[in-house]
Parts: sequence; structure tokens; C-alpha cells
Amino acid sequence: MTDARYDFASDNVAGAMPEVIEAMLSANSGVASGYGTDQVSARAADLIRKALDADAEIRFTASGTAANALALATLAAPHEAVAAHEHAHVCTDETGAPGFFGSGVGLIGLSGPSGRIDPLSLKTVLDQPDVSYRQPAAALSLTQATEYGTVYTEAALRELAGLAKARGYGVHLDGARLANAVAAGFDLKAITAMGVDILVMGGTKAGSTPTEALVILNKSLARRLDARLKHAGQLVSKGRYLAAPWIGLLADGAWSRRAAHANAMATRLAEQMPFPLLHPVEANGLFVEMDEPALHRLRQKGFFVYRFLDGSVRFMCSWATTPELVDELGEALRQIF
Amino acid sequence: MTDARYDFASDNVAGAMPEVIEAMLSANSGVASGYGTDQVSARAADLIRKALDADAEIRFTASGTAANALALATLAAPHEAVAAHEHAHVCTDETGAPGFFGSGVGLIGLSGPSGRIDPLSLKTVLDQPDVSYRQPAAALSLTQATEYGTVYTEAALRELAGLAKARGYGVHLDGARLANAVAAGFDLKAITAMGVDILVMGGTKAGSTPTEALVILNKSLARRLDARLKHAGQLVSKGRYLAAPWIGLLADGAWSRRAAHANAMATRLAEQMPFPLLHPVEANGLFVEMDEPALHRLRQKGFFVYRFLDGSVRFMCSWATTPELVDELGEALRQIF
Amino acid sequence: MTDARYDFASDNVAGAMPEVIEAMLSANSGVASGYGTDQVSARAADLIRKALDADAEIRFTASGTAANALALATLAAPHEAVAAHEHAHVCTDETGAPGFFGSGVGLIGLSGPSGRIDPLSLKTVLDQPDVSYRQPAAALSLTQATEYGTVYTEAALRELAGLAKARGYGVHLDGARLANAVAAGFDLKAITAMGVDILVMGGTKAGSTPTEALVILNKSLARRLDARLKHAGQLVSKGRYLAAPWIGLLADGAWSRRAAHANAMATRLAEQMPFPLLHPVEANGLFVEMDEPALHRLRQKGFFVYRFLDGSVRFMCSWATTPELVDELGEALRQIF
Amino acid sequence: MTDARYDFASDNVAGAMPEVIEAMLSANSGVASGYGTDQVSARAADLIRKALDADAEIRFTASGTAANALALATLAAPHEAVAAHEHAHVCTDETGAPGFFGSGVGLIGLSGPSGRIDPLSLKTVLDQPDVSYRQPAAALSLTQATEYGTVYTEAALRELAGLAKARGYGVHLDGARLANAVAAGFDLKAITAMGVDILVMGGTKAGSTPTEALVILNKSLARRLDARLKHAGQLVSKGRYLAAPWIGLLADGAWSRRAAHANAMATRLAEQMPFPLLHPVEANGLFVEMDEPALHRLRQKGFFVYRFLDGSVRFMCSWATTPELVDELGEALRQIF
Repeated sequence: MTDARYDFASDNVAGAMPEVIEAMLSANSGVASGYGTDQVSARAADLIRKALDADAEIRFTASGTAANALALATLAAPHEAVAAHEHAHVCTDETGAPGFFGSGVGLIGLSGPSGRIDPLSLKTVLDQPDVSYRQPAAALSLTQATEYGTVYTEAALRELAGLAKARGYGVHLDGARLANAVAAGFDLKAITAMGVDILVMGGTKAGSTPTEALVILNKSLARRLDARLKHAGQLVSKGRYLAAPWIGLLADGAWSRRAAHANAMATRLAEQMPFPLLHPVEANGLFVEMDEPALHRLRQKGFFVYRFLDGSVRFMCSWATTPELVDELGEALRQIF
Repeated sequence: MTDARYDFASDNVAGAMPEVIEAMLSANSGVASGYGTDQVSARAADLIRKALDADAEIRFTASGTAANALALATLAAPHEAVAAHEHAHVCTDETGAPGFFGSGVGLIGLSGPSGRIDPLSLKTVLDQPDVSYRQPAAALSLTQATEYGTVYTEAALRELAGLAKARGYGVHLDGARLANAVAAGFDLKAITAMGVDILVMGGTKAGSTPTEALVILNKSLARRLDARLKHAGQLVSKGRYLAAPWIGLLADGAWSRRAAHANAMATRLAEQMPFPLLHPVEANGLFVEMDEPALHRLRQKGFFVYRFLDGSVRFMCSWATTPELVDELGEALRQIF
Repeated sequence: MTDARYDFASDNVAGAMPEVIEAMLSANSGVASGYGTDQVSARAADLIRKALDADAEIRFTASGTAANALALATLAAPHEAVAAHEHAHVCTDETGAPGFFGSGVGLIGLSGPSGRIDPLSLKTVLDQPDVSYRQPAAALSLTQATEYGTVYTEAALRELAGLAKARGYGVHLDGARLANAVAAGFDLKAITAMGVDILVMGGTKAGSTPTEALVILNKSLARRLDARLKHAGQLVSKGRYLAAPWIGLLADGAWSRRAAHANAMATRLAEQMPFPLLHPVEANGLFVEMDEPALHRLRQKGFFVYRFLDGSVRFMCSWATTPELVDELGEALRQIF
Repeated sequence: MTDARYDFASDNVAGAMPEVIEAMLSANSGVASGYGTDQVSARAADLIRKALDADAEIRFTASGTAANALALATLAAPHEAVAAHEHAHVCTDETGAPGFFGSGVGLIGLSGPSGRIDPLSLKTVLDQPDVSYRQPAAALSLTQATEYGTVYTEAALRELAGLAKARGYGVHLDGARLANAVAAGFDLKAITAMGVDILVMGGTKAGSTPTEALVILNKSLARRLDARLKHAGQLVSKGRYLAAPWIGLLADGAWSRRAAHANAMATRLAEQMPFPLLHPVEANGLFVEMDEPALHRLRQKGFFVYRFLDGSVRFMCSWATTPELVDELGEALRQIF
């Protein structure tokens, strides 16, 4: 085994599922007007509105980081801040993009076990008095499923969002792995009612070519949205190619059905995992306790995976992960344990 | 005829050419590491380096506006400005994106006939004394082919670039329609020698799914380039899908071959155009003098086209434009003349 | 005569008037809380509110450019633009600061004679349809007195502001020379009723040490104003020193009384000006037609003045300009005519 | 005792020392050219260059936050970060201004006792590999005297700066309380040799009206500095009023002489402080362990002081603090102990 195998390094290492490819090919024929004004984009947005049971302005971006950063910059002024789990993707893995899109907008790290925000931590931040020398919270960013492979209950998300809304603050939901949460039982139609203003609905990690849906549920925030996207380098001219994948993902339920497969593969891996699990396996990722020598041995066996900020080593499953591959990894893990 | 026909509204209304689709499908198989570190991205970059005969750092973005704005922000500090033709895309059609990416970086409009910068206009700007109350020029942005469908000679571009380089300023080349310029005889391998620091090489309008190549010819400007892109929301996780089209475009010469077709279609249209041409037809666009009633009659016949800032009405041809369609439009134009 | 004399180069070349110095000295005693929370700042703000007959949030900055840019960034989003006279200070003399404070916010130049915006020019801009590729107007910036030494009538300002307000857009008033307009008959108390959202009331050019008052008349725009200022590097710790001058300027009417003197000196100079006046002399500045040889001769006589964007040569009077100095300049001008 | 007494709340609550006022009054006479091109500004810069024994470009700002943020934005690109003590003023008290000036530039918090950076903490950060998802360090920000009233030895500062320089990174020195460090024995002339690129030399807290000196020791960073300042809202037209205080501060040694008094007052207070000191008293501040009831009792006695991020309660002395006042506070502290 010579080349490193990235199969479990992330859920973005997989290609696009057949349904997405088919939709892309279908969208490729004929002429379409530019900048997202085409019929493919309209149909994709309709499918998302239907899935969410919500009226919303919807656009598509190639980068989840961009969609998240645009959302945060929309919800908080530059001299304000967004509160998020200290290990949320927007805090740790997006290279300061919120500050770029938000002209220096701040981030406030909240604590909580296994990637879920502790309501007490949020309350403490929300209760801080406004002072001139600190960027005060103006919005809350949630992540479902979380960065550590856990899934909030609807009630837990509603409580957190409610704390922010009670102060008139905005709420963002990073749904890069929302499909996995839905596959785990989370109700997509609950998002609007709990007060989320902007949802970033993940396509890429769910098994698409690059596309994320920027879903503006609070339409008062959508003024001149196309100009905002263009100004920020996020409006592509041939918009149909970012929209078409959503037809493949949603028209026949592939988005959540294939996420259920990814979750099942994670469970299958958990069942044979010799290393201790550090977080509950509720979606498509496992986080285990593994020392450096063991990690080294695993990489020598060809499997490349990352160590995370909390010290754990992460294994991600995707729509493309096969039971055979899981079992092969399981065998390798047992050998190095 | 009920629906508006956008066939000649822009060269971005066409779908992707077969070579691009084939390359995308080929790239879709298997697992790939993320954020542009994959083999598809490496091969696409190699093909571009070979085409340019240049060592360069190369990345891919979904938006040409973003690639241009990133380039300008790399070449000029926020308190400086970039000089460009007053009708260049970066000045008139990118919604202020350079100011967003460049934290308020300025733009200085230069004059010149048919979209080509008059060297005297550039000299006048370059000779202005530095004063604290004005953003001084620090870079020059060129466009090849130009916004008005003309093509600079190599000597003309070299002269303009040379004026900027002589002051130590950076040079950006917006090549959204570089394929059309190459098809018109421009030598791709001349770009490096004339001192271009950053080239944005157009894929989308040439007939691809969304992708533009950010080509950093001056590698001293590429420090921590991936972090720069990620920070600016321009690094997609499944990078192979922005890179693969370039294999389709370049591996067998489709990029310039199909641009030659687009140019030929523009010439065919010019030969039967009853309205006066306002600019030479050197690439894939025609700009004609047409009053509002005539434009209205044309739109009633179903053809949607834009009126431009210089008052002309624009017709664009693409890789997908057929001779039959050109002749059909020609017939319609003669009827409304 | 060896050293250049800057007396007429600008109204910012003069020192501070005695009333300002006295107020500064008075404010210097004792201890004061920081960041504008002190009693001096409170009293200065009260005096401004009384002068304007308006409830407003008021802060003080050392730079008029900063106050203007902050105001524009408050009134327009980064993907929007502010319309202003094409020769307004914010457009031509502030080094792109609006774009810096506003993360790339745009400026749209309006035309009109002698620095006054032509309502038709404004209407044309306001009537432009929203498109994704252009930053649409979201606010109007007015200047009173104008950059060319003219003074809008109250009715004219009200008409312009009204056009913007009718579309729900914000209105900024650059009052760097508001004192001179008031001395020329403009009613300070008319500003609120005409719909100005943010006024920058000039102290420096009126004869103060550095201070401008940022007057937020539309208090819904003042949320977390101190944090906004601090974030933008505009909240000084010893705030009393930017506030105290306003007590000197306003407590006994020195602000407008000394501006009346400056205006009178401009009129005195106009009466003996041999060069043709290019704009009406309504405040404290004269703009004349003078060719380069004549300007050169004047500079050789020691008087340094600037040529402006409209080609005119500008002479500015201040609170400190004496009749003797005016007559001396008049004599010099006649000699070189 | 009715009004709160802020005498020990900060060293910015004091007025300006007589030497500063005298220099201001002296600078007020006559006409001066604008934007820092005047003779007062030239002389002030000369005095600073002499004090530092360094060739440097020097400008003056009204806000230390602005000067710091401008410095950091000059040393690190938006997609990079500045490493600083986690409790440094730029990290905790400047409302995210670095992110505003630096278009989202990052901050990396370093640890170390009593406000001094632990070299190991810096090394760990500097040794982190470059990855696309994180803003890498590009500069180091030091503070002398530190936020907790301690003073680095010259050797300690040199070591830290050297670690950054060895990687080609920039070094910023926040000298808001540099006068107190100098009074404590730190050699001003050592700053250049240790590799500091940009020094912000504090005037305000040393006993001036608002002014900080932005000292660009690495002159390659000073290109178009006035335009940079103007663009960022930091170039005042009557520049002499930000420069003149430095003549008062430096011409006769008042800057460090009066800082020595402030330090002595802190020592005097320390000698009678009943509450435990949490950091060494090396400059003009004391940080003590005091629970909430005790702090409440102290405030009831009229003394307003702040609790800091590390839990301590801070007492600051200034040039204006009298021995009598120190003793009065000491008595009050003993009463509430």
C-alpha cells in the first residue's frame, strides 16, 4: 500500500453521487440566463423551500466557508460579534473568513460537551454588559450536526436559538452536515419555527459537487442579495451548475437517504472500534482516543486521518463509504491497537 | 415565440462543452484529498503552466469577479488604487468587488477607444504626484480580449504593461475571454515575458462549467495562497470539480479551438449585420448602433440582448452558437432594420 | 519673502480661536472618566443639541474624513453605494476612506453647477433599476457649504434630501463648513426636519483644534455607537479634549460669529479680485480662473494656493484672516494680473 | 463623598501636564500647512528620533487603538495573524480594531505570567505548520510596560522579538506605557536593535492630551504612509495639535520624569496595600486580590476601579497622582480590608 487513503479523512473526499451527476448533465443542455436567474436555480430553490416548508430567499455558493461568513456578516455589524461553539467550524477551520466578510466582526467562543453549546455558557455571554472596549454579541451560530458528530435535539436547538431571539439577536445554522442530522431524526421543518434567520444547507459533504445553499429564512435580511453576493465574489455567472445538484439531492430524497447510509457506516465502524470513543456517534463521524504512536501505525497502514483540537482522532464516513471499507479499516485498527 | 432567447445576450448563457463534461465525469470517480491538494488539480495546473510556458502558482475559483478582485487586492494596498480601462469589467460590472476584497482599494478609470487603454491616459495617471488625499495607482489591470470585443496586439499590451512595470507597479490581466484573443492570434506564451504578475484565465465564458484559473506568475505574491483563498471564501473543499474542466479545455486544445468557432460566428454575424458596427469585430462580440425602438422590435422577436455603457447594443457568440442561429438572428435584424 | 505663505491655501491652516483655547484649558483640570463618558463631553453634546434643536446621539472625532466615512458606512451596506456630488470632499479628497470604513461601499458621482447637486442628476441615479452587477444607491451625501464655496438654500437641500427619503434612503450632511453656511443665513434648526440622518458638524475649519461632531439625528442608527467608534479607531480615551472645543465654539456663538468674519473676508477679497470668479462667493472661499503662468507668479510672491479639479484656483479665508492680509493679497493679485 | 472618584481607575483619567499645555499654546500661533506637513510635526518627530536614536518615519494619531491596529494591519496580511499576549490590550480592550483595520486579520493569544509572553508559548505558535484552514502567525505584538504593570527586561524582549525575526516576521511594540518602563530602567535606545518594526509610543497615558506616536522603524513599511493614514481616517488636517504635545513631553524629559513619579506613587501605594498583590509592581499599576464585597465597599467609599480579566482589581497611578491621594486611598483600603 503506497498511496495514502483519505477515505476516512473527511466526508468531502468522496465524489458526487449519481443523482447529482445526472442532474448536472440534465442541466447542461441549452441556454440559460446568468447569475442565478435561470430555471434550474428556480427549481432547486423550490425544492429546498418545500423540504423546509418555508418561504425563503435561496442562493447557491461553491464554498461553505463563504456561505457561513456571508451569513454571519449579515447578522452582526463589524463592531459586534457572533457567539458560536469554541470548536465550531466558523471558529476553528475557516481561516478567519467571518472577519473578512464582516470587516472585523468578532467571534465569541462558547463551551459545551461534544460540540453542543451549553446554554449556561451562552447565557453568560448574552448577559455581559455592553462596553465600548469589547465587541458585544449580536448573533448566535449553531451547527447541526455538530463538529464532533453529535446531533442536537430539536428542543435543545430551540432553547439556544430562543435565548438569542429573546434579545433580538440573529441566529445562523451551519448545516454542512444537516443531512446527517436529518438522517438521525432531526426534523428539517422545525428550523423555521425555532427562529433561525439564515441556514447554510450543506450539499458538498452530503455527496454533491461543490454547492451549499444559502437559505435566508428571515427575508428582511435579503435586500439586494444578488448584489451582496456579487460584491463578495459569490455570484457565479453560470448559476445553474451550483443549483442543479440540489435537484439531484432533493427530488427523490437522495440527500437524507444517502446520509442515513453514511451514518450507518459510522455506527458499523463504532461497533468494531477498539479505541475509546470520546463523543457519542450520532451522525457520520467518530472521535477516538488514540496516541501518537498508534496514529503513526495507522498512517503506515495507509489510512490518513486528522487529529482534532480536542485531542481526538476523527474518522468520517460518507455516502460513498462501503461496508467492506469499514471492515477493512476496522481490521487495521484492531491490528494497531 | 414566447420565451426570450438569451443565446446572444452573453457568452455565459451556453452550457459546458462535451470535453469539459467528459473531464468532470472522469474526475468524479474515487476519493480525492480536499482543498485543491488532489491529483486532478495538479494535472490541470500543469496543463495551464504548459500552455503559458510559465512557472506559476495556480488555483481555481468559481467566480471570475472573485478571481479578479483577489488579484487586484494582492497587487495594491487598500490605500492605493488600480488603473484600468474605465469600461473594464472590474470597473463597471463587478459590483465593487475589488473594494470589498481590497478593503477599499481604489479604481482609476483610463480612457481609450474600443476598450483598449490609450497609453497616454495611463501615463497621465502614472505621472500624478503622490498626495495624501488621493489613492495613488499601484497596479494596472488589462483585459484581453477587451470588453468591446477587440484584441490588443502583443506589442500594445507590452507597452502598457511596461509603463506600469517601469514604476515597479503590478500588472493584472483579466483573461475572461483570453481564449477568444488566442483564437484571434494572440500568443499565450507572451504573457509572462511582458510582465503580467497575475493572470485570470477564463474558463466559464470559454465553454466550461464555472471555473476560472487564478495564475500567479509572480510567485513572490503567492505566499500562503491557500489561506488567502480560504479567508476570502474562495477555497472549495472538493477542488477537483473546479480543476477538472481545465483538463477538458486544454488537454486537446478545445479551449482555443472552440473560441475560434465563437469568433467565426461573430464574423458571420458581422457580415450580415444591417446596423452599424461601433467597434471592430476581432473576437466573439459585436457592438452596434441601434436605437430604442429597434431594440424593442428585436426583443419582440424574442432575442434578448443588452445595451452597454457606451450606448451600443451587444451581441455575443459562444462555442455553442450555430451558423443556423446566426443566420436566424441576421434575418430578424434585417426585418427590424 | 522666502517662506511660502499658506494663509489662503485652506481654512485649516489657521490655529484655534481664543474661545477654543480657553475651553481646552478649562477642561484640563481635574480627573475625568474616559472614552467620552465625562462631563465635558456631555456639556458639549448638549450645546450641539440645543443649537440644532434636536435630540441626537453625539460623539467627537479628530478627523472629518473619519466622521464622514463612518457616517456613510452606517447609511449604506458594503454592496450598496452613496450618491454625492462628483466633486464632494468624500469623493475627491478623502483617499477612499468611505471604501475602507464601508468594506468597499461605493460612491456615485452626481453633477451640478458650483458644487450643488442637480436634482435631475440625483433622480437619474435613484431611478436606475437594481441589478446584481452594480452597487445601487442607498444613501445621499450632501455638503453645506459646498466644496466650491456656495450655499444651498434650505429649500434646495430639502428637495434633495426628500428625493432620497422618498425611497427610504439615508441622508448624510457633510458640514465641514456648516458654520460658514450658517453665517450666510442657513438655519441650523432646519437640518433635522429635512430628514438628515447623520450630520458631521465641522469644528476644525471653523477655528478649532482638531474636532468634528458626529451627530446621529436618526437615533436608530446609534446602536452600540461607542463600540463602533472604538472598533474603527475613533474613540479616544481622553475624550474631553475633543469635546471641550465645542464649548468654546458654541457657548457664546463664536462658531458662527467667526465664520461670518471669514465670509466677510472672502467678500472683501472678491471685491478686489482681478481674476474672473468661477463660482458665486457665498461663504469663505473664492474660485477664480487663473492660468499656470499667473499662478506661478503668485507663488513667487509667496502665496501658496491650490488648483482644483474643476480647473479653478482656490482662495480660502478663515476666522484668523485679517483685512490687512486680504488687502495685501489683493495687491499681489493685481500686480500679477 | 457623592461623585465617584476615577483617580485610580486608569492613567487616562488625568489631564495634561503643564509642559504639554505650554507646547500646545506655543504651537497655536500663526499659520501652518496641513496634514502633518508643518514645522511643529517635524520638530516633534525629530525629538522622538533622537530619543530612540533611530531613523524612523513618524506620524501622530489621536487614538492608541488606531495606531496599534494600523501597525498590526501593516505587519500581517488579512489571511494571516498577529501573536500577542492573550491579555494584551490589542486582544482584550480594542473592540476588534485589528480585524477592522486588517480586513479580518487574526489574533493568536499567547500565555505567560503577569502579562509577559512565555517564549515557549510563542515558539509553539511559530512552529505550527501552515495549513489553509487557519490564519498563520506573521507578526508578534509586544507590550512594554505590560498590561499587568510588569516590565520586560531588555534581554527578555530581545529574545521574543528575535524568535519572530528569525522567521522573517514583523514585530510591533505597544508602548502605551513605555514611559513607565523607561522610568523603571528600560533603555529606549534598545528598541531599534532588537528588531521592532513599528513602535506605538504612548503620549496620552504619559500625561498628554490625546496623541500617540506611530513610529515606523522599518522604513520599508512606510510607503505612502500619509495616504494610508488618510484612508484609515487617521490623518487630521491640523496635525500640529497632535504633534505639539510631544515637544512638551520630550524637550525637557518630562515624559519619563513624570512617569517616574507615577511609578513611585504605585510603589507608595503598594507599601500600604492590605490586599495581596497578584503581580509585581514594576511600573505604575497594582493588581490585587479583592473579592466582590470588598470591591463594593471600596466603591461606596467613592473610589471607582476595574476588575480585570485575570480576576484582579487594578489601581493605576499617573503623573497627576499625589502622595496625599495615595495615602487617602491607602487609608480607605485599610478600612475595608
